[in-house]
Amino acid sequence: MSQTKGGFTLPGESGYEALTLKMAEKWGADVIRDSDGTVLSDEIVHAGYGIYSTICIIRDHNKWAKENRDKLQQTFLCTPAQVAEDESVTIGLMDSFFEEQFTINDSERAMKYWEVYDRTSNTKIDASKWSYGKESGSVTISGITPFHKYTVSFLAYRIWEEISMYNHTTNNWDKEHLMQIDPRYPETQEYMLGWMKNWCETHPDTTVVRFTSMFYNFVWIWGSDERNRQLFSDWGSYDYTVSDIALDEFEQKYGYSMTAEDFINKGQLHVTHMPGNQKKSDWMAFINDFVISFGRKLIDMVHEYGKKAYVFYDDSWVGVEPYNGRFQEFGFDGLIKCVFSGYEARLCAGVDVPTHELRLHPYLFPVGLGGAPTFAEGGDPTLDAKKYWNSVRRALLRAKIDRIGLGGYLHLVESFPDFCDYIEKVSDEFRLIRSFHDAGKPYTIRTKVAVLHSWGALRSWTLSGHFHETYMHDLIHINEALSGLPVDVRYISFEDVKKGALEDVDVVINAGYAGSAWSGGEHWKDDEVVTTLTKWVHQGGAFIGVNEPSAVEGYDYAFRMAHVLGIDKDTGSRVCHGKWSFEADDAEEILPEGATVEPKDHLYLTDGKAKVLLADEDRPLVTVNAFGKGKGIYLASFRQDLENTRMLYQLIRYAGGEGMSGPYMTDNLYTECAYYPESGKLVVINNSDAEQTTTIPTDRGEKTVTIAAYDTTFMEL
Amino acid sequence: MSQTKGGFTLPGESGYEALTLKMAEKWGADVIRDSDGTVLSDEIVHAGYGIYSTICIIRDHNKWAKENRDKLQQTFLCTPAQVAEDESVTIGLMDSFFEEQFTINDSERAMKYWEVYDRTSNTKIDASKWSYGKESGSVTISGITPFHKYTVSFLAYRIWEEISMYNHTTNNWDKEHLMQIDPRYPETQEYMLGWMKNWCETHPDTTVVRFTSMFYNFVWIWGSDERNRQLFSDWGSYDYTVSDIALDEFEQKYGYSMTAEDFINKGQLHVTHMPGNQKKSDWMAFINDFVISFGRKLIDMVHEYGKKAYVFYDDSWVGVEPYNGRFQEFGFDGLIKCVFSGYEARLCAGVDVPTHELRLHPYLFPVGLGGAPTFAEGGDPTLDAKKYWNSVRRALLRAKIDRIGLGGYLHLVESFPDFCDYIEKVSDEFRLIRSFHDAGKPYTIRTKVAVLHSWGALRSWTLSGHFHETYMHDLIHINEALSGLPVDVRYISFEDVKKGALEDVDVVINAGYAGSAWSGGEHWKDDEVVTTLTKWVHQGGAFIGVNEPSAVEGYDYAFRMAHVLGIDKDTGSRVCHGKWSFEADDAEEILPEGATVEPKDHLYLTDGKAKVLLADEDRPLVTVNAFGKGKGIYLASFRQDLENTRMLYQLIRYAGGEGMSGPYMTDNLYTECAYYPESGKLVVINNSDAEQTTTIPTDRGEKTVTIAAYDTTFMEL
Repeated sequence: MSQTKGGFTLPGESGYEALTLKMAEKWGADVIRDSDGTVLSDEIVHAGYGIYSTICIIRDHNKWAKENRDKLQQTFLCTPAQVAEDESVTIGLMDSFFEEQFTINDSERAMKYWEVYDRTSNTKIDASKWSYGKESGSVTISGITPFHKYTVSFLAYRIWEEISMYNHTTNNWDKEHLMQIDPRYPETQEYMLGWMKNWCETHPDTTVVRFTSMFYNFVWIWGSDERNRQLFSDWGSYDYTVSDIALDEFEQKYGYSMTAEDFINKGQLHVTHMPGNQKKSDWMAFINDFVISFGRKLIDMVHEYGKKAYVFYDDSWVGVEPYNGRFQEFGFDGLIKCVFSGYEARLCAGVDVPTHELRLHPYLFPVGLGGAPTFAEGGDPTLDAKKYWNSVRRALLRAKIDRIGLGGYLHLVESFPDFCDYIEKVSDEFRLIRSFHDAGKPYTIRTKVAVLHSWGALRSWTLSGHFHETYMHDLIHINEALSGLPVDVRYISFEDVKKGALEDVDVVINAGYAGSAWSGGEHWKDDEVVTTLTKWVHQGGAFIGVNEPSAVEGYDYAFRMAHVLGIDKDTGSRVCHGKWSFEADDAEEILPEGATVEPKDHLYLTDGKAKVLLADEDRPLVTVNAFGKGKGIYLASFRQDLENTRMLYQLIRYAGGEGMSGPYMTDNLYTECAYYPESGKLVVINNSDAEQTTTIPTDRGEKTVTIAAYDTTFMEL
Repeated sequence: MSQTKGGFTLPGESGYEALTLKMAEKWGADVIRDSDGTVLSDEIVHAGYGIYSTICIIRDHNKWAKENRDKLQQTFLCTPAQVAEDESVTIGLMDSFFEEQFTINDSERAMKYWEVYDRTSNTKIDASKWSYGKESGSVTISGITPFHKYTVSFLAYRIWEEISMYNHTTNNWDKEHLMQIDPRYPETQEYMLGWMKNWCETHPDTTVVRFTSMFYNFVWIWGSDERNRQLFSDWGSYDYTVSDIALDEFEQKYGYSMTAEDFINKGQLHVTHMPGNQKKSDWMAFINDFVISFGRKLIDMVHEYGKKAYVFYDDSWVGVEPYNGRFQEFGFDGLIKCVFSGYEARLCAGVDVPTHELRLHPYLFPVGLGGAPTFAEGGDPTLDAKKYWNSVRRALLRAKIDRIGLGGYLHLVESFPDFCDYIEKVSDEFRLIRSFHDAGKPYTIRTKVAVLHSWGALRSWTLSGHFHETYMHDLIHINEALSGLPVDVRYISFEDVKKGALEDVDVVINAGYAGSAWSGGEHWKDDEVVTTLTKWVHQGGAFIGVNEPSAVEGYDYAFRMAHVLGIDKDTGSRVCHGKWSFEADDAEEILPEGATVEPKDHLYLTDGKAKVLLADEDRPLVTVNAFGKGKGIYLASFRQDLENTRMLYQLIRYAGGEGMSGPYMTDNLYTECAYYPESGKLVVINNSDAEQTTTIPTDRGEKTVTIAAYDTTFMEL
């Protein structure tokens, strides 16, 4: 039986009423939720708990959808380029796309947005040169240059809601395919408001309505061939918000029109990992404005029925944008994030909303991610839970989360009593940590960090999706490492730099490969950005660059901040230039033992003055360069693990002049701690799978503790 | 005693007259040469051999040089960029350069070419804002933007001839530093002609004058710091041809002026491995024109004295350009190339000149390249000679070379009788092979290959220097592999493609990293090039791309020929795109066993149709894509060894439709053969360090031979 109660959402299960109430008691739950497609029995509903129900406003309306096929959601698609063997060529539009997901929108209103491109010359083909064959679903282009290659960009209806499609195809469901309807049409809005009203009236016991989520899913384009089923997937992209009606309305509002090519981008599409442009920015603002304005009507209705409205920060979250400064306009009472990683907990915690709730892993399913058994023979859900909690816990020490919960089928826990005990422990730990935050903020070091990339605050703590989808980017590793460090972190854009954002910052981190949104790409062509940063470092700031920081073509060095970093990458033009020899030496022991950096080819010291702390033969891995009163620090790459998380922390401390050790810093890198000055509480965590002993300098002397694997120790100073 | 005689140049040595004559007899020499700085004794000179003397027309004139310091050769140098901490900055010009190599040319005539750049904004600073302090050797720039960075580009005299400097510093010589004088001045020309006349008159026994070489050395800029002594080195670059007078004359001739920045190029300088531009082209033509016009006067004088004039294709060869179609204008009787590799033998053989001579390795020095012993204790010069001969021999089978020879100190061979015997064997082999060429050309397969890069024929067979200086480029490995294959090879430029060069070609090879001269860089923005190649492949040609072929930014795919290759490289914008899965399968056995390809990240199949012959897990290494009647073939990289040489040969045969085996192709990849139809001779070589047996289909049935390691077999069919 948990020692404390509250802040816990339990997935109830009909037919397991006794178990539901028993586990609610054990884990200190105050709210019971339904799971997708299930209905809670009266026994549970009337047991005195808050009741939390999920709805997905754009799907589960197949009857209406079938009657209103012209109001389904859409997207632009672009055919693969086809080489013309003579002066005409015919291109089948749907050849490479999954026919169960898309159908051509060849209405007159849509076709005015279709575009045919010569991809050899990068020019648009005049509409007089091509014609559409409705029967064959193909476009024939005539009077063109032989042996150039051509594409057709067209609007398509999405006829299978992507989350439904994924579950269906992955788990071999044979239920009816769900379609998603587009609230951009007045008729859809009228239908949705009516449906919402009816839902509220027929769910009197529900206290919290969880929206999954608002209207537009992240982009997930499937292909016709099983060898390449998932053509494109981006958690942060807006392609699924487009429609002929939205394009028309955009033009009225912004005075210029978006074209197919603005979305298609030479067939590469726009990925969140690459910098956007003003048009994309305008489009995102336009969609966000609509999602707020109509979303607010649904939320107001929920409120009118005396219920709270929470939103799930995944699936159809596009256009919601909790980090753009307008999120409060929705009027949501809570935001729920399913989390694998610490940065996702920070992503949730950082949103300005009354209630922040995490859906912990593992979900109560027989198998977990990647198909390995969880609540099934061969599974060890307790160990899984420990590992996930291990990632999330350190973030919870830094930022307050109000609620946690589980998802899935509760009956599965019956055979795993140690899991039930562990969750009891976790829920008590969570409530204890939450109480410390209530008393006051945890201790942080003086050094303040800003992560600089092209999205700035809009993509605080996240890139585009979960860790396992973005592991190839250095910045997700850095975000994950930062999520549990006792450091004040903010995310800034290049515009912010020009607007004075560095004034209150000690360390700027810029991490990513050349051209990416995270490194910054073309933004580095702005001399004012470079000059402002240069001056700021010279006056005492520290610029930490990772991989290809500040990289852009057209200048003397590949890295625009090479003069600060003292290191650059040869992109080919310096293959005949001599390279400075060096001896790697970390005399100040800035790097912890066991820290590792993946080497990168073609790095070279610019003027030989940077100190190389770590190297792989003649490849520098970590360098430090004095620049005025400040420093340039470079890492060839960053991969998150316990040793490297400590390395990043020590580099930040070093950059900020706070030394390699200090108050409330454990002397064992496998452990971390958080201190809450107002309540005098010290929490020490063991992030490793083995027992650890660690000593912590505090204002009341050194404290030494020994902690079991993955365990937590609480102390009062 | 050699069985044949002639075509062999022996380095004579005074004091070892008997040895000189004995070895001349043994190796079948017809010519005896002096070595650098040595004089042959009368006994040798009058023994009935041709006498060959080396001269270097631009150095060894220190007396005159000291009296004419304003006529020394020059170069542009550019200081490292310096960040301005306020509105002015002072930059010491020589801080980073080797003061024994350079001295500032601050004459009025030179200073008008100096340039100060803001490297942050990429803009030139008006001359009114900077001033030169002659005393301090520094430039002070005022009224500038704080925290931008600045460079000064200036003209410097080179006061130490680079080859002299290298020998001096490497071997700790303490002789007087030699300076090089610039024949661009009328006074220098007058001096040189007088010197040459005197030389001819005082060297009546010399039959061949070897020029080392003409006037301008390849570029070799040394730095002030021993940690980075060699700042820049490029065998094909023209920076050392520049001077204020040349710049003035260029403007008069071309109607526009070259600036410092045209040479300095943002401090990156212009390396041969990167594409040039029209200005660079004009400058090269301008210099070549001068080198021919004045060089011809010296050569005519040599001819007037009844001597032949050969030129050494190294050192001060810049401006000579044996492959630009004007080389015959010099009137040279011969061209000598020192060779480590097969491609260098082809580079020599391909020049239109009466006599082609190779200087073989090892040189008769105690230590060889890299400091390992040769003619000294612990050395095995015979094995060295076998390995070098092994590389060169296969090229000699394909193209006729007229003479070979050695260099160095002859007395060193006395302790190595097996070396003497081996050279006897080599010289006989050489003369035998030469006699086959005299009778008629060797057999080649039908398939004709063109290597496409931005220099075209001008850089046939070479990139910029020796193999060990350019090993990081795929194309040098391909050149080396091609040098001994029974394939007709030419080198073409992008202009050539547009002018119809593909008409007579079956296979085009494009190999290099993105942006390099070898891949082609900006040349790939020319739609006509892409379209012409596309059509040509569609009609039956084969495009073999290696590494980042046809790569240029701004199009749908990173590789402009991706539609032909069926493979592309993700430069970041496709990180969210799905990738085609594949199974590697070489069902047709196109690749020989043991062939290897270094993997390259971020490659992906464009439409899934390319066949992957070889892969490293999910990284394709070798792919073949059907395109119309032709093929696109891709290799992630190419590294030359015996297995990979065979791989390239088989891919060429496959591309040309000639199958994996055929007439005059050995069935053992460690061996190769050449057949001379006119003389009916078959030469089979063992390229490996172990005995090999091989069978060769010929017009007179199959021939099987067993050959010792590195050995050669001659047969008459």
